[in-house]
Amino acid sequence: MIIKLERIKLQTRKAEEAINITPKVEEIVKNSGVQNGLVNVLTSHTSSGLLVTEGIPCLEKDILTHFSRLFPEDEDYHHRRYLDYDGRLGFNADAHLKSVLGGISCSFPIENGKIVKGSRQTIYFMEYDGPLERTYLVQILGE
Amino acid sequence: MIIKLERIKLQTRKAEEAINITPKVEEIVKNSGVQNGLVNVLTSHTSSGLLVTEGIPCLEKDILTHFSRLFPEDEDYHHRRYLDYDGRLGFNADAHLKSVLGGISCSFPIENGKIVKGSRQTIYFMEYDGPLERTYLVQILGE
Amino acid sequence: MIIKLERIKLQTRKAEEAINITPKVEEIVKNSGVQNGLVNVLTSHTSSGLLVTEGIPCLEKDILTHFSRLFPEDEDYHHRRYLDYDGRLGFNADAHLKSVLGGISCSFPIENGKIVKGSRQTIYFMEYDGPLERTYLVQILGE
Repeated sequence: MIIKLERIKLQTRKAEEAINITPKVEEIVKNSGVQNGLVNVLTSHTSSGLLVTEGIPCLEKDILTHFSRLFPEDEDYHHRRYLDYDGRLGFNADAHLKSVLGGISCSFPIENGKIVKGSRQTIYFMEYDGPLERTYLVQILGE
Repeated sequence: MIIKLERIKLQTRKAEEAINITPKVEEIVKNSGVQNGLVNVLTSHTSSGLLVTEGIPCLEKDILTHFSRLFPEDEDYHHRRYLDYDGRLGFNADAHLKSVLGGISCSFPIENGKIVKGSRQTIYFMEYDGPLERTYLVQILGE
Repeated sequence: MIIKLERIKLQTRKAEEAINITPKVEEIVKNSGVQNGLVNVLTSHTSSGLLVTEGIPCLEKDILTHFSRLFPEDEDYHHRRYLDYDGRLGFNADAHLKSVLGGISCSFPIENGKIVKGSRQTIYFMEYDGPLERTYLVQILGE
C-alpha cells in the first residue's frame, strides 16, 4: 500500500473567498504514483472549509452570499467575546458556523492514476475569515 | 488490498426526490468479497447529493421541504443567468446550495463482509434538479 | 494493512449537547499501532451528529443555538406524527435535520502514529435528541 500525505500552504487574499484547488489536487494525485485508491482533501482550520460544487464564479458568490444570509456576521453569538488564550476579542463565530455548514473535507476515488469525479465537480478551499495563510492536506492511499 | 469501484446509473423521476440506495450499496459490498475495510458512496453531480438519515417518507419530505425553505428556488441568485457553455439560462442555484448543505458522500466501515451502520441509518441519493439520469460511485477498499 | 474498528458507547446527559471526543479518538489511534493511514469517526444514529470545530464552550453553544434557529423544534414537520414501528409520536424531525446539516462523520490522516489535524480542530459528538446511550465508530486503516 502506498500512503502519501502533503501539506499545501495557501495565502488567501480576502475576508471570504472560494479558491479552486482542483488542479493542485490532480497534480498531487498524478505525482503520487497511485493507480487505484482514494484521495482525501481536508482543511486544517476551523474558520475555513472544503467543499465540492460546480466551478463557476456566479456560484462561488451565491455560496458565500447565502452562507452569510444563514449565519450573518452581526448575529448575537456567544463566541463574540474576549478570548483569554488569544488575547483578543473573537468575532468570527459566523466563520466557524459556515465551516460546519459547508464541510471541511472531500474524498474521491482514484482509478488508473486519475481522480474519478463528475465533469463539473470542482474542489474548493473556502476562506471564511481571511486573509490568512492557510494549510490544507491531501492524503492518498492506494497501490 | 482489494480496491473496487462501481459506477451506478440512476434515473430520477421528479424535480426533487430522496432515493434510498442502501440495498444497492449493501449488494455491492457483499459481492466485492471484501471482509474488512471501508465503503465510500459519492454522487458525481453538483446539483444532487448523498446523505444519511432515518429511512422514512415523512422525513424525506421534511428534508426536501426545509432545504427549500433555507434555499428557496426564487431567491435572487447570481447563478440565475445565461450560461455560455450551456447555451441556456441557469436556474438551479438552489440545487447546488442544497447539495453543499446536505453533502455529497458518506463512508462506512465494512466488518465481516457487512456495512457497519446504525439500524436506522439509510443512505439516500438526493435529487435536487431532476428528473435526470444520474451516476453515483461506490468504492470499496479492504481485504 | 491493519484495519481496526472500535464501537464506543457514550451516555449523553442533555437534550442537546456537544461532547469533545478528541482525546478518546487520539487514544484509539495511539493504541492501534498504525503509523500511517487514516482514521474515520462516525456516529451510528440519525438524530445525532459528528463534526469538527474549535474546542471552546461559547462556540458549542453557538452551534446548538443557531442550528435550532435554522431548524426550530416547533416547525410544522411531516415527521411530527405517530410512528407505528415505534409505538409513539415522533417529535424529533429537527434533530434529524441538524444531523444532516452538521454531518455525521470526519476523517483525518495518521502520520507517525498521530492524527494530523489543525491545532484548533476538535472532534465533537453532537447530541440533538438526548439524553440517550449512543454509539460512535472509530475505524483505522493503515500500516
